[in-house]
Amino acid sequence: MSIITLLTDFGLDDEYVGVMKGVILSVNPAVAIVDITHRIDNQDIVQAAFTIHSAYRFFPDGTVHLVVVDPDVGMERAIIAAEIHRQFFIAPDNGVLSLMVADATVWPMVRVTNARYFLSPVSRTFHGRDKIAPVGAHVSKGIQLKALGPEIGRADVVCLEGLQAEVSENGEIIGRIVAIDHFGNLITNIDTARLTQAQRNDPAKTIQVKIGCRIIRGLSETYAGVAQNTPLALIGSREYLEIAVNRGNARRFFNAQKDDPVQVMV
Amino acid sequence: MSIITLLTDFGLDDEYVGVMKGVILSVNPAVAIVDITHRIDNQDIVQAAFTIHSAYRFFPDGTVHLVVVDPDVGMERAIIAAEIHRQFFIAPDNGVLSLMVADATVWPMVRVTNARYFLSPVSRTFHGRDKIAPVGAHVSKGIQLKALGPEIGRADVVCLEGLQAEVSENGEIIGRIVAIDHFGNLITNIDTARLTQAQRNDPAKTIQVKIGCRIIRGLSETYAGVAQNTPLALIGSREYLEIAVNRGNARRFFNAQKDDPVQVMV
Amino acid sequence: MSIITLLTDFGLDDEYVGVMKGVILSVNPAVAIVDITHRIDNQDIVQAAFTIHSAYRFFPDGTVHLVVVDPDVGMERAIIAAEIHRQFFIAPDNGVLSLMVADATVWPMVRVTNARYFLSPVSRTFHGRDKIAPVGAHVSKGIQLKALGPEIGRADVVCLEGLQAEVSENGEIIGRIVAIDHFGNLITNIDTARLTQAQRNDPAKTIQVKIGCRIIRGLSETYAGVAQNTPLALIGSREYLEIAVNRGNARRFFNAQKDDPVQVMV
Repeated sequence: MSIITLLTDFGLDDEYVGVMKGVILSVNPAVAIVDITHRIDNQDIVQAAFTIHSAYRFFPDGTVHLVVVDPDVGMERAIIAAEIHRQFFIAPDNGVLSLMVADATVWPMVRVTNARYFLSPVSRTFHGRDKIAPVGAHVSKGIQLKALGPEIGRADVVCLEGLQAEVSENGEIIGRIVAIDHFGNLITNIDTARLTQAQRNDPAKTIQVKIGCRIIRGLSETYAGVAQNTPLALIGSREYLEIAVNRGNARRFFNAQKDDPVQVMV
Repeated sequence: MSIITLLTDFGLDDEYVGVMKGVILSVNPAVAIVDITHRIDNQDIVQAAFTIHSAYRFFPDGTVHLVVVDPDVGMERAIIAAEIHRQFFIAPDNGVLSLMVADATVWPMVRVTNARYFLSPVSRTFHGRDKIAPVGAHVSKGIQLKALGPEIGRADVVCLEGLQAEVSENGEIIGRIVAIDHFGNLITNIDTARLTQAQRNDPAKTIQVKIGCRIIRGLSETYAGVAQNTPLALIGSREYLEIAVNRGNARRFFNAQKDDPVQVMV
Repeated sequence: MSIITLLTDFGLDDEYVGVMKGVILSVNPAVAIVDITHRIDNQDIVQAAFTIHSAYRFFPDGTVHLVVVDPDVGMERAIIAAEIHRQFFIAPDNGVLSLMVADATVWPMVRVTNARYFLSPVSRTFHGRDKIAPVGAHVSKGIQLKALGPEIGRADVVCLEGLQAEVSENGEIIGRIVAIDHFGNLITNIDTARLTQAQRNDPAKTIQVKIGCRIIRGLSETYAGVAQNTPLALIGSREYLEIAVNRGNARRFFNAQKDDPVQVMV
């Protein structure tokens, strides 16, 4: 059985996610549909880019991921489809696949233009339902990406810059919060590779994490590894630096917001 | 594989939706279950009526739709099951299927009374679980509606009046907001047929949409078709008139609430 | 087709639930996954214990229930797996299965230690994904619990005391609110057995339910069985005493919170 995942900013209040599933099952009744999340902050392409990049690796080969965060629906932006690491990704060409496309083995990638695989008529307000859902269902049934439209290269798609944290020459890392999870944990764009780089391959060096005017010394291994209501930094399940409070809520503790800066010094 | 959809006001905080699925899968392990939404405003039969009417057309023939918005659970109200446009609908007889039953080809429709298809015992607080879920699962397995109870006609069921907008003699349309979606878009009960009627078949005529003391001139084709933070009117994905704000939130922009009036003048 | 259910406090904002499903489907592509709820209050083991105990009975034999409310993830607490009433339960050993394990027919129960069934590597922050999901998927495919680790007995697992209400010698019941549902209904830990016991097997005796300084006399059979906006007590769908307000919200009506006391006098 093949799998289609959905990642959107639609929320769950309305029928939008449900009708996408109806369209998918009309084309491929045997597919399993998995919601990654529908609660990406409205139109937050960056948050969606990190989320799909964190989630896809836990799905089997051949999974088809539909990423629908699409503030310019109905305008000129294209829809793209790509095979990356033996999985499939279909999304508006607005940068939401930037972290996926930056990976090494993208092949092939196409601009989706073949109306044969769309609903008819196509609305100008809901391409998730009218284009991306039926195209994804056809891909899950095995059609080749090249049947969807002309092949394109990395240079042809929108790529967001500056998503990952930067490491300065002295090894200081300048990052920021890209998501705040359900528990109030602050998830940064500082990955383990950059932390290792900052430590200059000496993992014994103690890391200091600066958020606001507070400094957290050292990395914890678990959320419960410090006293209750004490802040800590750790490598979260996404393999990115995360700031949390044991049995508490780091968002409230630090009065933090998405995009707030986080620095790491060694 | 057959499909059962769920549309309720149960929310997702509790086990209620999950146990309905357990009951369904106990009867028909092979069915695919799709959530349309569980966030209908509590006991809002009108909002549910519009939602199922907007969503069903994206599902394949034979789909079984369970609509459980049921403020009078345990009282005398009946449960009804109907085949409409080659799909099946099961719901309390409280008007939640009004827009479906108004459609042309309802056949047959029954009052669901055959306890053989219910859980035993039946509680008086959760007919979604004890009656509608198992009955829906049996229908998805192919039992005839007539096996569920006596056949009834349109005149036998509760039908809500005044759901659709009205067109006055001079072509003015008097409608209202029936749902506000996750993005803050204001969805009215003014459909494209009524808009065309108001334009007296001259689509060149500019429409004016009045909400509060503000007038929006003309229809946009896309959400991004006006400047940012500017309000617009368009035909939404439900094929009803919708008021939105490009990259903004119309609910907050207009301080709007469900049931607020919306007028269209030509 | 086998079934796996998920019951967590992860919420739906993030990719956490989705990646658990990806892991499950990677091991067992043919399983049906049902969300019981992901909105257990953060780290509320008691609420989760009542929820799984209320929900499991509506699932068919062989269902595998994964309960992930796990404030001590990454610490020394074990993960346990048990077969109870011909269904399977996998959870951290923190008391979340207390009400299940208290049931009569637990056999067998094991401590889950066999890393062969885990993801590799195992993180210290997300055992739901790295241990419980893949183990659950293997159980759904038919592996024996004994393959997962050493067999243990009831005395070996964490058991929460005082979950159920107490009945005093004069038949007064001292309970509390353990969950407040989406409709604002106040769900207590007073079950029908205790109510019967308080009535001393004379069901004609009128029950009085005390919440705050208010007394509700008698049990209603349905939510709509009293005047609108009037409070009532009834046996809810969980088979526990529940306090509600017809077409209203008991949480707001009583300004109630979880853990508030509820007394029953006869």
